[in-house]
Amino acid sequence: MKFTVTHTSSDTKARRGVLETAHGTIQTPIFMPVGTLATVKTMTPEELKEIGAQIILSNTYHLFLRPGMEIMKEAGGLHKFMHWDGPILTDSGGFQVFSLAHRRKITEEGVTFRSHIDGSKQFLSPEKSIEIQHILGSDIIMAFDECAPYPATREYIEKSSERTSRWALRCKEYHGDRVDQNLFGIVQGGMYKEIRRRSADQLVAMDFPGYAVGGLSVGEPLDLMCDILDFTTDFLPKDKPRYLMGVGTPDYLFEAVERGIDMADCVLPTRNARNGTCMTSEGKLVVKNAKYAKDFRPLDPECDCYVCRNYSRAYIRHLFQTKEVLALRLASYHNLYFLLQLMERIRASVEGDYFLQYKDDFYRKYGYNSK
Amino acid sequence: MKFTVTHTSSDTKARRGVLETAHGTIQTPIFMPVGTLATVKTMTPEELKEIGAQIILSNTYHLFLRPGMEIMKEAGGLHKFMHWDGPILTDSGGFQVFSLAHRRKITEEGVTFRSHIDGSKQFLSPEKSIEIQHILGSDIIMAFDECAPYPATREYIEKSSERTSRWALRCKEYHGDRVDQNLFGIVQGGMYKEIRRRSADQLVAMDFPGYAVGGLSVGEPLDLMCDILDFTTDFLPKDKPRYLMGVGTPDYLFEAVERGIDMADCVLPTRNARNGTCMTSEGKLVVKNAKYAKDFRPLDPECDCYVCRNYSRAYIRHLFQTKEVLALRLASYHNLYFLLQLMERIRASVEGDYFLQYKDDFYRKYGYNSK
Repeated sequence: MKFTVTHTSSDTKARRGVLETAHGTIQTPIFMPVGTLATVKTMTPEELKEIGAQIILSNTYHLFLRPGMEIMKEAGGLHKFMHWDGPILTDSGGFQVFSLAHRRKITEEGVTFRSHIDGSKQFLSPEKSIEIQHILGSDIIMAFDECAPYPATREYIEKSSERTSRWALRCKEYHGDRVDQNLFGIVQGGMYKEIRRRSADQLVAMDFPGYAVGGLSVGEPLDLMCDILDFTTDFLPKDKPRYLMGVGTPDYLFEAVERGIDMADCVLPTRNARNGTCMTSEGKLVVKNAKYAKDFRPLDPECDCYVCRNYSRAYIRHLFQTKEVLALRLASYHNLYFLLQLMERIRASVEGDYFLQYKDDFYRKYGYNSK
Repeated sequence: MKFTVTHTSSDTKARRGVLETAHGTIQTPIFMPVGTLATVKTMTPEELKEIGAQIILSNTYHLFLRPGMEIMKEAGGLHKFMHWDGPILTDSGGFQVFSLAHRRKITEEGVTFRSHIDGSKQFLSPEKSIEIQHILGSDIIMAFDECAPYPATREYIEKSSERTSRWALRCKEYHGDRVDQNLFGIVQGGMYKEIRRRSADQLVAMDFPGYAVGGLSVGEPLDLMCDILDFTTDFLPKDKPRYLMGVGTPDYLFEAVERGIDMADCVLPTRNARNGTCMTSEGKLVVKNAKYAKDFRPLDPECDCYVCRNYSRAYIRHLFQTKEVLALRLASYHNLYFLLQLMERIRASVEGDYFLQYKDDFYRKYGYNSK
């Protein structure tokens, strides 16, 4: 993997880069659509390419439980299994073990938990997570961490963050010197700056090819997230990609890029789509609402995606009303296109050094409070 | 509309034809995918074209209730509303009024019923059905009929069939001399040959541009259906298209074509797909079954569709197991492709005059009892 920063914003920490992986080259900053269970919900890989997806994210925890590693191994890895030949990033399972699994018991060794699907007893550890991600064959793999809740005491965060660093080292050792898969470390530390700094220093000392900032966008106010993120990225090497986990609304993406983030992911654009909430250049549009029943304009008149070129709000509302699968498809397609298109424009604005101006224009039109 | 029979089988009543409509030319015999609520479930119009769909069917009863005619009128008709520019056939609503609606009351004037959606009181009559189909703008529209249940007494069928003929005449009068939309009459008569013959004679005397055979495939044995169908088509003009309603499994399609049918429709290929049952050249395959968990072959190794070229049974089973929307898409796509491909081969076999041989080969391989 090779990462090159090609432009840096003159008045912010925003940067434009190129990330080369075994399955393709990624222009950063980038949003990564989430394909939890080896499918970006409702979409085919061809459609993902059509809308400009450069890399997708998939979830170790979910794939570990279903279809399980025996099938993933026989399938020859995740790329082949799901028919996606572009870059894939997998998370470590840490987040889901701490947010989704039942009756978890954390020890230094790892985490014992009950599957949220069938209650079966399972175990994940740094080594196990990396072993799974080796089988999945993803281009970027993540160290096994604890994503601590918010709020949490300093004592809890300190203990958890120190363990995450020890786990990161075990991940790195287990991963060895493979070059086809790249292991990222995850900075934790909650909302405590000194702990964030210590976590960053510890991970940077281990020399990962990239770094994620975890434990943000977990319920804290946006201002606080921005402050902690801004502080944290200063301790990460400039020549390595930086990934903010779990962020996928336009404002969070702008704020993240402004603070030096290169990669982000989130289930929101697709989850909201399935609930009938679409993003448009003038803000959110709940297409399920009755007021769109006779609105024959596209979801977003300024959008040139397949959905906006061919379907009306009235039709899409009808599909939602009648619980038709095509509703989920069209809304998901548009939302992902909207966000990927936004990232393309953000990249152009960083390259042309008008990022803050573009952000300001977008915020005003979208209805966000300008900052 | 123009219909030309281009070839006739030397040893059966099977025929090969070309049907020209305002929205495109249809090669017959043809299977019509069903788009009940202005969408062929899970599919885009582009995908329908990709798999060779030449005409789709949509349902008057369903569209009348949702989104309703006010919206359909403002949308400029069904083609524009759903973004399908090929031919469309709409049924009359008769079948659903008699099978789906609640508390129906039949008079000579029409049928009063309660919507199966919200219990609201509704009314459909020959004139109302044609008025709705005029708003929908479908290329082929159907006369309002009663699809009688099976079994039913001779007395019931006689009365119902006579009324259907009177309703057909009212439909024709209301329809007038429009040429962009073509009104088909529907032969009824249950399993009683004399009533079938009388119904056919009455409708043929009204001179419709095409004729449907209704009231078959409603629960009777296949042999009985074949017998009644064979009898009925003899009383239909050779130079007009013949449409068998509600038929969509390979055997029923073969038997129908053999007895001179040019068009057929059914929800089964898509409904079965959504339940995880796929058609293959070696018979039905319930891809949800555990035995396919590690089967990395395509659904049908002999199929060259997008799904079979790119995905394994193991992957599709995983998608069904995890209730992913893509499962419904892939299975629907394959099943419709399979059936449309089958019809293409049937057309070639009629043209090359080896229909019975092809039928025999197909039956043996698919696991049907040869007849």
